[in-house]
Amino acid sequence: MVTPQIDLNNEAAYRPIGIFDSGIGGLTVARQVMRRLPGESIVYFGDTARVPYGSKSDRTVREFAWEDSLFLLGHGIKLLVVACNTASAVALDELTRYLRVPVLGVIEPGARAGVERSRNGRIGVIGTQATVDSRAYEKAIQGLNPKLAVYSTSCPLFVPLVEEGWIEGEVPELIAKQYLTPLLDAGIDSLILGCTHYPLLKPMLAKVLGPDIDLIDSAEEIARQVQVLLNDSNELNPSQHGVRHFFVSDLPRRFEELGKRFLGEPVAGISIAEPWKHFRPAPLKDQP
Amino acid sequence: MVTPQIDLNNEAAYRPIGIFDSGIGGLTVARQVMRRLPGESIVYFGDTARVPYGSKSDRTVREFAWEDSLFLLGHGIKLLVVACNTASAVALDELTRYLRVPVLGVIEPGARAGVERSRNGRIGVIGTQATVDSRAYEKAIQGLNPKLAVYSTSCPLFVPLVEEGWIEGEVPELIAKQYLTPLLDAGIDSLILGCTHYPLLKPMLAKVLGPDIDLIDSAEEIARQVQVLLNDSNELNPSQHGVRHFFVSDLPRRFEELGKRFLGEPVAGISIAEPWKHFRPAPLKDQP
Repeated sequence: MVTPQIDLNNEAAYRPIGIFDSGIGGLTVARQVMRRLPGESIVYFGDTARVPYGSKSDRTVREFAWEDSLFLLGHGIKLLVVACNTASAVALDELTRYLRVPVLGVIEPGARAGVERSRNGRIGVIGTQATVDSRAYEKAIQGLNPKLAVYSTSCPLFVPLVEEGWIEGEVPELIAKQYLTPLLDAGIDSLILGCTHYPLLKPMLAKVLGPDIDLIDSAEEIARQVQVLLNDSNELNPSQHGVRHFFVSDLPRRFEELGKRFLGEPVAGISIAEPWKHFRPAPLKDQP
Repeated sequence: MVTPQIDLNNEAAYRPIGIFDSGIGGLTVARQVMRRLPGESIVYFGDTARVPYGSKSDRTVREFAWEDSLFLLGHGIKLLVVACNTASAVALDELTRYLRVPVLGVIEPGARAGVERSRNGRIGVIGTQATVDSRAYEKAIQGLNPKLAVYSTSCPLFVPLVEEGWIEGEVPELIAKQYLTPLLDAGIDSLILGCTHYPLLKPMLAKVLGPDIDLIDSAEEIARQVQVLLNDSNELNPSQHGVRHFFVSDLPRRFEELGKRFLGEPVAGISIAEPWKHFRPAPLKDQP
């Protein structure tokens, strides 16, 4: 590992990028950031003790997102990436408003790519129940171009299928057909994969949807946005090889085993962290 | 609602039974307890903010189980039922050892029923990854009769299927065939449904497995054990209609909507509770 020669005039550039997700899926985002910006150091947190977020309430996800973010801020990050679509959909506004570091979510980059790449103006979005219920992709897409039509559907079984490694064959194809037929019937020409687990289903989805549907993976888009933002603020890390730390709240061995498939290389240096033991926000919940 | 005339000589009988589960599935246990013992009051806690437990580590599940149990103890329960198979498999021993109320799990009653009902001595068990990894059913069955053969397999997609309401048709049948064919090939004549979600899949499982396989639901068995235990200790509640309180850590509306299917009647009186905010156990985790 190359130890960077710290340029004391630009200390900020050497600080790490923080990335959090509800679990392992955010490694697809880390992978694209590492591919595009190999000199950047990364601190990753995956909340594997409380995964999934996508089937839980806005209030609970916001509370978890605050705990995860403040844990990463404790590592001196220069930029926070909310790799979890659900947390991006429901907590990005308040994190952006109250934190002193720039915060990037995965919704806006994915929406922008959909707007740029759709030819017929009919864009499909798939995600968790919470992401779809939030209508965050619709708002982002129509904020860019109000004439576009957006067709969304939740695919709650896709995350368990990916977690099981059941990413091709009869069962996932049947489930995908059932979820996606209404979107095909609506005439979409592009489909935003609005959950960090879904990029692993790309080959299966391409088979089910046929060659005419453009599959949009927000991980690539957000990595491009990270680069633009750090370049603009003169905070690109001049190191040759960034340092990476991975924290999970449970099951580090499983994270190591499965993580390779998401990260595209072995996941080295995993530790356990439980952010809720360090930081206790004021209760956000009311009675029903 | 009938207010019981408190018999001051037997105050303990009027105290509620505490039941906890990782989420909604434990309502199948509450249902059987209510059917068999309509005079008993029940305090139920479903940890819907941290569900599922079955894919998490022993240490995390033990920590969650302690928090859930101490929350229920705060309600003055006379008996604790661990309705969650995963928590029963990994935490029952220590809860039993350290708590002052009797603690019943769902493993032993299910195992006992399997031993009593199997004719050929080949018993199948299905459950979550954590339950199967714990080998708790094997140990319980072979503790009763070491000559019996136990064949276990985890069915990680069954819980998401039930949560989605996808309990019959081509997709669950295909998945069930894939999971259960090895057990059929092993010649089992009875199958223990080692997860509180699975009773809702009974009709589908009966179709896939055929009429010769006896499906064993631990919910009925544990209700019988609750009755025996309270009868022996002279703590059966003489009321005509027990009072029921349901607490969840997230999404009370969803619990109300889905819960009816599990409980067999409307779930009335749901509140939010977050036991981890009241009770903080000493950290149980090491580095990997």
